[in-house]
Amino acid sequence: MTLSHVRIVGSGLIGTSIGLALALKGVGVSMQDLDPRAQGLAEDLIKSSSSAEIELVIFATPIGALASVIDGEYLANPKAAFIDISSVKSKVKVEVSTSSLPTYRFLPTHPMAGREVGGAESARADLFQGRPWIIDSQGVDGDVVEKTTALIELLGGHAIDLDSAEHDKAVALVSHLPQLVASLLAKQLHGGEERWLGLAGAGLRDTTRIAGSDSKLWREIITANSQAIRPLLLSLQNDLSELIASLDSEDSVARLISDGQSGRARIPGKHGGKAREYTYLPIVIEDKPGQLAALFEECATASVNVEDLTIEHSPGQFTGLITLALSESDAETLSAHLKAHGWSVHSPKK
Amino acid sequence: MTLSHVRIVGSGLIGTSIGLALALKGVGVSMQDLDPRAQGLAEDLIKSSSSAEIELVIFATPIGALASVIDGEYLANPKAAFIDISSVKSKVKVEVSTSSLPTYRFLPTHPMAGREVGGAESARADLFQGRPWIIDSQGVDGDVVEKTTALIELLGGHAIDLDSAEHDKAVALVSHLPQLVASLLAKQLHGGEERWLGLAGAGLRDTTRIAGSDSKLWREIITANSQAIRPLLLSLQNDLSELIASLDSEDSVARLISDGQSGRARIPGKHGGKAREYTYLPIVIEDKPGQLAALFEECATASVNVEDLTIEHSPGQFTGLITLALSESDAETLSAHLKAHGWSVHSPKK
Repeated sequence: MTLSHVRIVGSGLIGTSIGLALALKGVGVSMQDLDPRAQGLAEDLIKSSSSAEIELVIFATPIGALASVIDGEYLANPKAAFIDISSVKSKVKVEVSTSSLPTYRFLPTHPMAGREVGGAESARADLFQGRPWIIDSQGVDGDVVEKTTALIELLGGHAIDLDSAEHDKAVALVSHLPQLVASLLAKQLHGGEERWLGLAGAGLRDTTRIAGSDSKLWREIITANSQAIRPLLLSLQNDLSELIASLDSEDSVARLISDGQSGRARIPGKHGGKAREYTYLPIVIEDKPGQLAALFEECATASVNVEDLTIEHSPGQFTGLITLALSESDAETLSAHLKAHGWSVHSPKK
Repeated sequence: MTLSHVRIVGSGLIGTSIGLALALKGVGVSMQDLDPRAQGLAEDLIKSSSSAEIELVIFATPIGALASVIDGEYLANPKAAFIDISSVKSKVKVEVSTSSLPTYRFLPTHPMAGREVGGAESARADLFQGRPWIIDSQGVDGDVVEKTTALIELLGGHAIDLDSAEHDKAVALVSHLPQLVASLLAKQLHGGEERWLGLAGAGLRDTTRIAGSDSKLWREIITANSQAIRPLLLSLQNDLSELIASLDSEDSVARLISDGQSGRARIPGKHGGKAREYTYLPIVIEDKPGQLAALFEECATASVNVEDLTIEHSPGQFTGLITLALSESDAETLSAHLKAHGWSVHSPKK
């Protein structure tokens, strides 16, 4: 299955990135946007056009704009396959079911890619490289699924077939809930003195990092998926009320921390394999250019693979603590290597 | 002010680390622990002892064990200065006020150092290097404060004078609340299918990272500081209830995300200066040994200082996305440098 002519409706980050990647593969791409500036920029970036018969139409608009484009696109391209790329799927299926586009010609999809926000100018052809791309093939014509799978492979992603309702529950848990919790936590920081925040360590920084996300993007995602998110928030509310009621009980607090530990352990390790226990190796470095390079040069020399890392800073001072996540054997190898070369390596956290 | 003879009661991570650092500076150190194994290990590590008159006694026990040692230590060392190192201060002041030790001979302190857990065997002499160390000097004899300041400087830390009640409120906000929120969030992951968790990205990983913390340590900290934590949890509960009630309102959700953004922006940047806006430069690398080293080698060549970084993985695939936090000018320099050397640099996130 090869693709020759694709139409992309919506010239934002995702639509334009798909267009760029397709054009690089020699596929004819027709870009569309309600905003002529965005459309012009996307066309200029992609340097491709198509006046031939369209095989695949990709809806890459915000969810709220979808209803206004479906009927017109189906009328203009009655033989094409149709997909969307939005991050909430049930709502999109409802939109399509009330349009003239038959549901068996429409495949709901969600590329799990690109947290950067910023329209056509932020687009990159490699945005989908190595990323999962959810599709919901149930009740959809085989040629629509085949064309979409060809698209995903062409873009370097890999398709995962998942029911839309289940998709929405999954992203509510692993993406939307963390976003809301980070925002709720970060909001509480308004209640603190400025000098208190100077004592913040890596824990607060990690926990609130995604609170910096774009509110325009998220208000639409959250409200569109409110049905899947609400039970999770109610469960959180229940656990929070229990915690408040038993805050003076060491047993209750210990139980919550343990439940959190085991919950976190369910997140699989890198490369989607089984959850792995990493060994965390702390290293104190001087906080100046070149130190990280030298450290990773040592990692390369010792042939160890760094799975993850954090950098921790101390307010007012110029040393840094790097914690490397490694396999147990790599941690042993690297620890011995670094010690032999004069690095300030600490014992791994158990 | 020089220190010659120090006694440390409690041979855990903090106590033993202080002992190690003092011994390296030629100070006589006497270690004590209820557990003979811990005391023996600490003494063996530190290789120092002191039978001379003790100038400073450091209580480095868990908060719960404090009451059982205060009177005996004061009786044995009536002329000494006394400090503690526990992470909650108001409760410790109450313990001391009901003992025979006069409150003006006791300085409550809290070194903001060492998240690693694991007793004497995890101790390191450089644990306090570059770290803030809170003291509460109000109503305490000048010689006690002077001896403690000398201790902190000897260990490479820097003293910050803060009222105990305010300290407890500050750490409730920047340390204890994030811990509980991360645990509450991570606990919700028990409600998801295993394949959902395979879709988790950097957001969930960051937000739940500290949920892996030790429950024994935290149950004591949380219950000891419940008075300062409770109002924060109630405020969170209030905001959570409002969110649940208005989950279908785009305006309300957008307001929460914006409030979280501005709350997060209150956390100061590296080195305790004013909060800084970093530029986040995304770079796609091959996920294999040597790639990080090569990247940081380029950073060193371009003379830019990496302020922070994250590594993001895609399940099932072998590319990685590194996001470097840099000053705006460093980001421009590095981006141009990396592009010229064939790296896959994306546009910075705005």
